[in-house]
Amino acid sequence: MDTEIAPEGRLEVLSKAEVARLWDTSHSGLYQLFRNCALAVLNCGSGLDDGKELLERYKSFEISIIQRERGIKLFVKGAPASAFVDGVMIKGIQEHLFAVLRDILFIDGEVLKNSQIDLNTTEGITDAVFHILRNANILQPQISPNLVVCWGGHSISGVEYDYTKEVGYQLGLRGLDICTGCGPGAMKGPMKGATIAHAKQRIPRGRYLGLSEPGIIAAEAPNPIVNDLVILPDIEKRLEAFVRVAHSIIVFPGGAGTAEEILYLLGILLHPENENLPFPVVFTGPASAAAYFEQIDQFIAATLGEKARSKYQIIIDDPVKVAKVMQEGIKEVRAYRKSHGDAYYFNWMLKIDEEFQRPFLPTHENMRSLALHKNQEAHLLAANLRRAFSGVVAGNVKDQGIRAIEKHGHFEIVGDAEIMHSMDALLHSFVTQSRMKLPGKAYVPCYKVIK
Amino acid sequence: MDTEIAPEGRLEVLSKAEVARLWDTSHSGLYQLFRNCALAVLNCGSGLDDGKELLERYKSFEISIIQRERGIKLFVKGAPASAFVDGVMIKGIQEHLFAVLRDILFIDGEVLKNSQIDLNTTEGITDAVFHILRNANILQPQISPNLVVCWGGHSISGVEYDYTKEVGYQLGLRGLDICTGCGPGAMKGPMKGATIAHAKQRIPRGRYLGLSEPGIIAAEAPNPIVNDLVILPDIEKRLEAFVRVAHSIIVFPGGAGTAEEILYLLGILLHPENENLPFPVVFTGPASAAAYFEQIDQFIAATLGEKARSKYQIIIDDPVKVAKVMQEGIKEVRAYRKSHGDAYYFNWMLKIDEEFQRPFLPTHENMRSLALHKNQEAHLLAANLRRAFSGVVAGNVKDQGIRAIEKHGHFEIVGDAEIMHSMDALLHSFVTQSRMKLPGKAYVPCYKVIK
Amino acid sequence: MDTEIAPEGRLEVLSKAEVARLWDTSHSGLYQLFRNCALAVLNCGSGLDDGKELLERYKSFEISIIQRERGIKLFVKGAPASAFVDGVMIKGIQEHLFAVLRDILFIDGEVLKNSQIDLNTTEGITDAVFHILRNANILQPQISPNLVVCWGGHSISGVEYDYTKEVGYQLGLRGLDICTGCGPGAMKGPMKGATIAHAKQRIPRGRYLGLSEPGIIAAEAPNPIVNDLVILPDIEKRLEAFVRVAHSIIVFPGGAGTAEEILYLLGILLHPENENLPFPVVFTGPASAAAYFEQIDQFIAATLGEKARSKYQIIIDDPVKVAKVMQEGIKEVRAYRKSHGDAYYFNWMLKIDEEFQRPFLPTHENMRSLALHKNQEAHLLAANLRRAFSGVVAGNVKDQGIRAIEKHGHFEIVGDAEIMHSMDALLHSFVTQSRMKLPGKAYVPCYKVIK
Amino acid sequence: MDTEIAPEGRLEVLSKAEVARLWDTSHSGLYQLFRNCALAVLNCGSGLDDGKELLERYKSFEISIIQRERGIKLFVKGAPASAFVDGVMIKGIQEHLFAVLRDILFIDGEVLKNSQIDLNTTEGITDAVFHILRNANILQPQISPNLVVCWGGHSISGVEYDYTKEVGYQLGLRGLDICTGCGPGAMKGPMKGATIAHAKQRIPRGRYLGLSEPGIIAAEAPNPIVNDLVILPDIEKRLEAFVRVAHSIIVFPGGAGTAEEILYLLGILLHPENENLPFPVVFTGPASAAAYFEQIDQFIAATLGEKARSKYQIIIDDPVKVAKVMQEGIKEVRAYRKSHGDAYYFNWMLKIDEEFQRPFLPTHENMRSLALHKNQEAHLLAANLRRAFSGVVAGNVKDQGIRAIEKHGHFEIVGDAEIMHSMDALLHSFVTQSRMKLPGKAYVPCYKVIK
Repeated sequence: MDTEIAPEGRLEVLSKAEVARLWDTSHSGLYQLFRNCALAVLNCGSGLDDGKELLERYKSFEISIIQRERGIKLFVKGAPASAFVDGVMIKGIQEHLFAVLRDILFIDGEVLKNSQIDLNTTEGITDAVFHILRNANILQPQISPNLVVCWGGHSISGVEYDYTKEVGYQLGLRGLDICTGCGPGAMKGPMKGATIAHAKQRIPRGRYLGLSEPGIIAAEAPNPIVNDLVILPDIEKRLEAFVRVAHSIIVFPGGAGTAEEILYLLGILLHPENENLPFPVVFTGPASAAAYFEQIDQFIAATLGEKARSKYQIIIDDPVKVAKVMQEGIKEVRAYRKSHGDAYYFNWMLKIDEEFQRPFLPTHENMRSLALHKNQEAHLLAANLRRAFSGVVAGNVKDQGIRAIEKHGHFEIVGDAEIMHSMDALLHSFVTQSRMKLPGKAYVPCYKVIK
Repeated sequence: MDTEIAPEGRLEVLSKAEVARLWDTSHSGLYQLFRNCALAVLNCGSGLDDGKELLERYKSFEISIIQRERGIKLFVKGAPASAFVDGVMIKGIQEHLFAVLRDILFIDGEVLKNSQIDLNTTEGITDAVFHILRNANILQPQISPNLVVCWGGHSISGVEYDYTKEVGYQLGLRGLDICTGCGPGAMKGPMKGATIAHAKQRIPRGRYLGLSEPGIIAAEAPNPIVNDLVILPDIEKRLEAFVRVAHSIIVFPGGAGTAEEILYLLGILLHPENENLPFPVVFTGPASAAAYFEQIDQFIAATLGEKARSKYQIIIDDPVKVAKVMQEGIKEVRAYRKSHGDAYYFNWMLKIDEEFQRPFLPTHENMRSLALHKNQEAHLLAANLRRAFSGVVAGNVKDQGIRAIEKHGHFEIVGDAEIMHSMDALLHSFVTQSRMKLPGKAYVPCYKVIK
Repeated sequence: MDTEIAPEGRLEVLSKAEVARLWDTSHSGLYQLFRNCALAVLNCGSGLDDGKELLERYKSFEISIIQRERGIKLFVKGAPASAFVDGVMIKGIQEHLFAVLRDILFIDGEVLKNSQIDLNTTEGITDAVFHILRNANILQPQISPNLVVCWGGHSISGVEYDYTKEVGYQLGLRGLDICTGCGPGAMKGPMKGATIAHAKQRIPRGRYLGLSEPGIIAAEAPNPIVNDLVILPDIEKRLEAFVRVAHSIIVFPGGAGTAEEILYLLGILLHPENENLPFPVVFTGPASAAAYFEQIDQFIAATLGEKARSKYQIIIDDPVKVAKVMQEGIKEVRAYRKSHGDAYYFNWMLKIDEEFQRPFLPTHENMRSLALHKNQEAHLLAANLRRAFSGVVAGNVKDQGIRAIEKHGHFEIVGDAEIMHSMDALLHSFVTQSRMKLPGKAYVPCYKVIK
Repeated sequence: MDTEIAPEGRLEVLSKAEVARLWDTSHSGLYQLFRNCALAVLNCGSGLDDGKELLERYKSFEISIIQRERGIKLFVKGAPASAFVDGVMIKGIQEHLFAVLRDILFIDGEVLKNSQIDLNTTEGITDAVFHILRNANILQPQISPNLVVCWGGHSISGVEYDYTKEVGYQLGLRGLDICTGCGPGAMKGPMKGATIAHAKQRIPRGRYLGLSEPGIIAAEAPNPIVNDLVILPDIEKRLEAFVRVAHSIIVFPGGAGTAEEILYLLGILLHPENENLPFPVVFTGPASAAAYFEQIDQFIAATLGEKARSKYQIIIDDPVKVAKVMQEGIKEVRAYRKSHGDAYYFNWMLKIDEEFQRPFLPTHENMRSLALHKNQEAHLLAANLRRAFSGVVAGNVKDQGIRAIEKHGHFEIVGDAEIMHSMDALLHSFVTQSRMKLPGKAYVPCYKVIK
């Protein structure tokens, strides 16, 4: 499909230099980045979660910027048909395209090129996340704390999906907004439920915030309900964005990506400086998911210990209770921030260790060298386990990861026998429960746990 | 549940005389009418479709008006719990309560008492419908034709319900708004689907218009997605409101009420003066409903003849096609109105015979005396058949009708053998398909077809 | 000038019957009423304050309603050029035309024809005023008390005009809104000043409410800053509207009309039932107006007595003090209404004696028969004095009054010698100070005080 | 006066690093810059136009940032009382304070520190202006060309001031918006007139754009009608901002600053590359200003030649004609931009020679060395003459300039005899007509023309 689209908001105003930068082929591949993210956004609703396949399927896809008297327009050529209704692009997807343009340009021009933001320091990384979110108009000081981050798999069962909708509905009835990784499955369900609830409660500006990054977006195309999309530069900044904007977090069933998120979150909450910080976390699913969460719980106990288990609550098959626990927890968060003068819209007080901020590149070498043993503090072990699962996600669905696996074979994950045993069991269960990839083809593991 | 609620819009400003009128017990039962409709609205989501049972179950329910410096408030006592979330009334239901108040007062004060509106003439009745809709702010001249009236049963199967959602979704993706009788089932599904689609298309002011009347509202409590609720004074004015505001009509599977609506519509469209008026009508349902529509189609052929069959199109299991047909049809409607200078927001040109406007009271006597024979023009037979089904609806779910049946036994429906045969078959199929009442108890017919 | 204009708000939706009523020549002159008020509105800014001359000058003026698919339009032919900028009608004047249409139709159709509003009772008259204001969307419950009614002459000196602007500016800086009789002079100045102040205070929805009636509108065409115009049916209902919506009142220098307003107000405030009602009233003007107010003050003392003098405060040449006194007074009004549960937007508690509500027709006979003596309660004397000045206004600027004077000669005003003496002095000073009519021609008195 | 104020828009969200930067005393005086601009903003309406005196009068003034859960607040101590009404800061001035904060931080953090903006190139300087305006939300692509830049003196006569109001009124009636240097006099009058006209035309979002810079703001405090204030980093970028956002320019009578603006504008329009660019320019004033413009016209003829005279039109005492000429001219601008695909909101096509972009520091040395002779292209002579007048402005009203004059005596202006003669005459007339400084003290020239 070919079309020309115009934006509606602020970002249609680009300088000549900005437009030029997107065309400068020598300019470190900015155009490629933009083009690939744009394609991912347009691929929404296609049932494809393979970054490499996407790029190959739409080789002739092109997107270009046209300067007009009222600002820029985008010209799209060879786009997936699923983004259109009777030849007209869905409005939500249009917005996503411009969000991608905004973030790609801003990150390149005003974050990476800004001498005041030092990405080699923990403060600098946090500052970068703050600037990106602020530029995307996400940090809204007039809104009271009400943002529930929902994590969970993009490939989940129908029963689990309906459950995420019902939880979203109960959250929405209580005036809560939703933030997810913005793909299908557990990332879409809560938004759908909340949309219906917000309609009933006459909340016309419900927020459905999606946080993505260039590596994952192809596998988890933002669903068009998302009305605030932000593309962070990498997975670590995306995870930091989640925990800085969250007023509470719900984890639904999922696969390797969800495990990565859980480990990231627990690793941070286990940091001594965060000991007293209120941060409501609930793991939840329908009755059929009880065994799943038992296994997750055991894995956490076996690796990070009992203290980590105190950081979350498991609620099975009770959406109303989940919503009430979130609501109560957020009240505490609000009181705490208020008494400490910390911003409602950005959790400055949360300590994030540099181990969780530094980008991890899942090469075969890096994967093999992860320190997966108990001879370290729990939050550091969490950081390394997080990296292991991050690598599995890359090997499953990301373009670069898939290519690396195709070239060098599976990743080897090495570590203490006990940890390896738990990990293997968990990963195996993800496979048998079809949580790794969308159904369609048989899943071939991209990793091998070396016991 | 007890609570006090304040309105947000215009109608909170009542004169002293208006407030007094609601309390004046001698004043022809205005308070009872208001109280019963309010109770019906609050009963939303309860799974109860029996007007009499509702009134009996909530005998202690009370609602009162309190005068305050910023206008009136409503004080509610003994309300059904389903209208509340954690003790707070759902905002959509609050709005419905004030809509009920507005319409009850307006109809009494400015329509019935207005010497310029003569309800004994066809022009006067149409004028009354116009005034009620205008006062409810429904007639919006700046909106291009986009309103699809969806009719269908309140008691339908899960598969049919999902189908109505999907149709609503496809309509919503095309920017169309929804109007229904505002109860559950086929009246809720299209609004739910359209809500999701409107979110994706960034349509913040999608209209979900619900038209009810005091007799039916208890059985078909407005779902809270409805963001414009109007209570017409009786079933005939409600039906006129539907066809005057509709730019097109979809009929989903349903029971006696749906049959009443179909006969009303066809009777009008068969009027010679409406011959050339574009008015898109589609009957649709999932594959499983194919037989149902075949039967309806045969009944129409057998009673009203082939010409009536040319007034609608049957589309099975194809929501996208339904939406496209609606969209195309509405374009024609728009062109026609524009070229004739007729209002987009009110179909003045549609001729409605007085036979369809005069209120029909379904007493045993009236039911028995209906002229159900072919020795009359098709549109007059349609009017009488319409009355027959209207009586069945009353006997099924309306407070007065149920009481009449309890007292005098079933209605007797008498007429030509051939018509009676078709009618009996149709009604029988409604019973066996559980379309008469919400499941729960066995259905006992309130009528007997005398063959 | 000829043009076609479309409205923007709610009232563009008229029923067929309503449109027809405006054309029905047998229908008690509704079209003439509408046409003449419309002409007056269009005459804004012309420097003409003679109702009769206006009608004669624009004899060929026509206005007609056209039905279109998006509602009605107005077609205007032979309109005064001052209403246009480069051939396009000023938007504010467009709105005024539609306000005239709305009120003419509503008063005729929903007030006079409504059997629930009995205009022979004091409650019925108040109810009529309430309905007209509500229909014009003036009664806004969400706004805290902030409406200052400004009275004063349409023909005042430049220094006085600048002073009214400065007072309006100081009121606007304090967030107060303005209501006037909506003509030039003291009715325009405060709105102009408040407009600038509201801009500085970022108050985008400042209200500039104008209240008129068919008799006076030709002489005091609404200035286009007025963003809420209401046409009451007669002078008495217009005066009642002023005091029911006012949270406080400022009186600037003026002529016979201003004297009428002062007497109306004092007559009401002197009623025993209003004794404790807070109602801030300030008479104010520049230093040059000190003598003027002294004379008014003496006239009140001489006719209504000392008690009447306690109902207002005179402030000379101090706009900041005037604004502060208003602000403080309104706080009391607010507290009083809140504690008594009386509406902020309509002063239900103010007692208005029927003597002030009954329309007074200033025929020669009626003028001659006024009971202008001290042998009655002060508030009744005020009522009669009010009528006397009302007659003078009619003779000065209203079409009917001017014609009556042309035919029968001047009005004779008869009464107690002392009262007549005071009155003659006051009227005489109005003449010498050019307060009776806009400058241009020599003023010929329409009255004679019989001493 | 002391107070605490909260912002309303986007900029209340500051990062920790940004807040810290304002407090870092080693950080090149950012706090001083912010504090002095804030003081200037608060000094609005004081009748003081002396930058040095302002700083000295309010030595104890302090402003500080407080971090709160809903974003930052400003705490102000020892502020001029004229910014307050009954102890509450005027809302427009509040907004200006936050605009100052926004621009000071943005220019420092995102323009000066951004490695992609090279301020040593002409493209880089234009890019900087673009970024500052975009960040201030000034570049609005959805608005059709309608912005009239009005230049003229801050110290003008009452008759001239009323004339600027009337011109603004006529512009506003035609839907045009106003941009000025945002001080008193000719910078305030047009905004005031346009505010009244916009009220009459129901234009709720009229733009009153003020462009300032840290050096001039103390002498020309923004009037609170300004609803978009931008602080450019220096006078040259301010001038560039004017001509890039203008769709047309009106010049009212003024002094040295106005002369600087005229020379800047003509110098640019004389550039060969701008030959065919439509750019409407009108010099206008009341009848009493006819001689003034004759003199300006002669000075231009004598220095820049006849061609320069073709770039503007002089209209005396005819506000309606001025408005019509502007409106017609803007239509051409619009057509030109549209056909060339140039932005409506930023005049990219206008060529500005580096001579006009490079900041000029008016030291005694630099002033003495200006090349004021005809042995150069006209647009380069314009650039140098512009610098000469810029120095005079600095010596008159800017803190640094005044101090330099106090220390080293007057500036010496040296050049060709003929040019010097014209210049001396012009400057002398400014002095005798009190256009150099607000009345109050006798004006002592800060310059000496060496003939």
